[in-house]
Amino acid sequence: MNLNPIRARAIVKKFGGTSVGTVERIEAVARLVAKARHSGQLPVVVASAMAGETNRLVALGNEIDSGYRGPAYDMLVASGEQVAIALLVIALTKLGVPAKPLLAYQLGIETDNVYSKARIKNVRTSELENLLAQNIVPVIAGFQGVDEDKNITTLGRGGSDTTAVALAAALKLGACEIYTDVPAVFSADPRLVPRAREIARLSFEEMMEMASLGSKVLHVRSVEIGAKHGVRIHVRHSFLEREGTWIVPEGEIVENPVVSAITHESATSVFKLLHIPAETAFMAKLFSALSLKGVSIDIISQSELEKGYRLAFSVSAEDAPLVQGVLKGFLPPGIESQMLDGVAKVSTVGVGMRNHPGVAARFFTVLAKEGIQVHLVTTSEIKISAIIDRARLETAARALHTEFALDV
Amino acid sequence: MNLNPIRARAIVKKFGGTSVGTVERIEAVARLVAKARHSGQLPVVVASAMAGETNRLVALGNEIDSGYRGPAYDMLVASGEQVAIALLVIALTKLGVPAKPLLAYQLGIETDNVYSKARIKNVRTSELENLLAQNIVPVIAGFQGVDEDKNITTLGRGGSDTTAVALAAALKLGACEIYTDVPAVFSADPRLVPRAREIARLSFEEMMEMASLGSKVLHVRSVEIGAKHGVRIHVRHSFLEREGTWIVPEGEIVENPVVSAITHESATSVFKLLHIPAETAFMAKLFSALSLKGVSIDIISQSELEKGYRLAFSVSAEDAPLVQGVLKGFLPPGIESQMLDGVAKVSTVGVGMRNHPGVAARFFTVLAKEGIQVHLVTTSEIKISAIIDRARLETAARALHTEFALDV
Repeated sequence: MNLNPIRARAIVKKFGGTSVGTVERIEAVARLVAKARHSGQLPVVVASAMAGETNRLVALGNEIDSGYRGPAYDMLVASGEQVAIALLVIALTKLGVPAKPLLAYQLGIETDNVYSKARIKNVRTSELENLLAQNIVPVIAGFQGVDEDKNITTLGRGGSDTTAVALAAALKLGACEIYTDVPAVFSADPRLVPRAREIARLSFEEMMEMASLGSKVLHVRSVEIGAKHGVRIHVRHSFLEREGTWIVPEGEIVENPVVSAITHESATSVFKLLHIPAETAFMAKLFSALSLKGVSIDIISQSELEKGYRLAFSVSAEDAPLVQGVLKGFLPPGIESQMLDGVAKVSTVGVGMRNHPGVAARFFTVLAKEGIQVHLVTTSEIKISAIIDRARLETAARALHTEFALDV
Repeated sequence: MNLNPIRARAIVKKFGGTSVGTVERIEAVARLVAKARHSGQLPVVVASAMAGETNRLVALGNEIDSGYRGPAYDMLVASGEQVAIALLVIALTKLGVPAKPLLAYQLGIETDNVYSKARIKNVRTSELENLLAQNIVPVIAGFQGVDEDKNITTLGRGGSDTTAVALAAALKLGACEIYTDVPAVFSADPRLVPRAREIARLSFEEMMEMASLGSKVLHVRSVEIGAKHGVRIHVRHSFLEREGTWIVPEGEIVENPVVSAITHESATSVFKLLHIPAETAFMAKLFSALSLKGVSIDIISQSELEKGYRLAFSVSAEDAPLVQGVLKGFLPPGIESQMLDGVAKVSTVGVGMRNHPGVAARFFTVLAKEGIQVHLVTTSEIKISAIIDRARLETAARALHTEFALDV
């Protein structure tokens, strides 16, 4: 089959939970898809679960056993997308648009078997290509895959973005549309920084940092796949006609600002250990014990004291009880541990930082001027993150936003 | 693999919607399964959707288009069983019972593609046998199958019973347990006839008639499969230890009462057409037109008038608007049509009727004594059904129950 004429018209359109949150919105999405098809596109639709549904399913499972992880958990939470795509196909059929609902096992979205955090290994495209050749709209359940033994797997919260970009990559398409309930990616969360503005273009690298640093707009793995396979990602509002933010290779952005965005995570916890043994083996054992419990360590800082070392690290506030449990059984007597739980992380992100020295100086000067204490710091080539008191987060974010000329 | 030792211990246990209606009940079902396993059984579990869930899903679909039938409808409603089996596996795992949730595509429950009313064509047993050999409890989604093209299909409301009996048949087991929210099959609906009593044994043939005549205890197709493959069906209460009703081959019942049960359907409608042409072609066309709309005709009665014929037929009240629509477009002028919609059907069922003449005489004598008018009648070797005014249903059912010596 010669796919070129199909590829030229095919476009993956992903709709998030709020876009399919009610029957009325599902019907509005169906009209949007029908319109795109009438304009000559061949839409490939990916949908999330109706807003609130995944939380409801997770809560049902947690009521029985919040510690369970395995195939039953993934089968449970994957049912939300199944409902959404079935309803969307009923709505499309009503509009006279031929459409077919497809689950991961039907399409062949193959993943590893790391339940609830599975990674896509391969996407079969034969069924998709058949449907597109017949002008039938494939409507695909996001978030789910299937492992070697045909069990349902899920890709982690927000994983429908990854389904969409992986489908675009497998079909060798140059772009993927992510329809959501915000008009674009913003230079900061507008609820925190009212003068935040829409960003027209961001590089894959910046978006990956932002997603890792607390921006909820895109699943980080979807950006990785976009970068690897050259799939430009267009984040846009479901019911506004205008364009939103394009995530593109860095080379396609003509002029970069020094800092592109301020991101934050408000629910962070810091642990400080004083007088730990001056041996790497101690840290290795501690972090292994934490990792076994599924705790992801974010920032780590270590410094020499007169006697032994001082160690500090941050985790998401959600994981703090797990850390406390591990430390209780792990720390030898004589080691003091402290937890700071009223803290947050604020970060500046921008590929422009590479070419503009002095960003760190400006970052700390701004915080110092506001009298904000920094508990922990980490940097990369394109970001600086600081852990500060949560009560000062708003002030810090607004001051940094102004300092780096991002205000509207 | 030598399956005999496994077959000797394997038993299919099906749990209905009310048995898995809440998280607490799901945990109680898990304890019941764990107990059976500890006593040496190898349970094969089949579950329905949590009570109310299928109705919720149907309503969502109907909100968009109540006329839609196709793969999206079946995918939508099948998600309820997926949730139930996932939760049940989480609960079993918590009790230390190794268990695996299985959807129709994983197990291989193959059906035709008559969406929403599919029939099972084949059940693969290799995965089940593997799990049982490893002492892992298979927990299977009832109600669903998969067609040749790997689309999800569903077996009709109540279809989880059919899944359970079909699995028992495929595994060549002699029995199947249907756990429900009533302790047994009753000689009449106890809400209508307070003196109804539990039936210890019923023949497949009687149960099939009862299921067709309005008893909601079992899906009629499950009884057909049980009869064909010699799978005895044990209907029992989920949380009572004692036995309920066994559905068995007729030869295993030593002494049959004349009538085993009184059944009823309260939502029936009758249509009467006067002076229709005296041609079979007219009726053929009429019933074809009704069948195209998906209307199932129940009782038909035809009689000769001085001029032309009189035709009367009954349908479920749900289908009455469809019939009215068809008649409007179909009837030539001069044909009067009447609809009786305040009517119900009452029936007596019993294989004993074969050997006891005079049952019809007693049936009509009872109704006559109560002054109950009969609108339509139909009989078979083992049943008599009459359409009567709905207002008299209770009186009729109680009087027949007493007449045939069924009262407690």
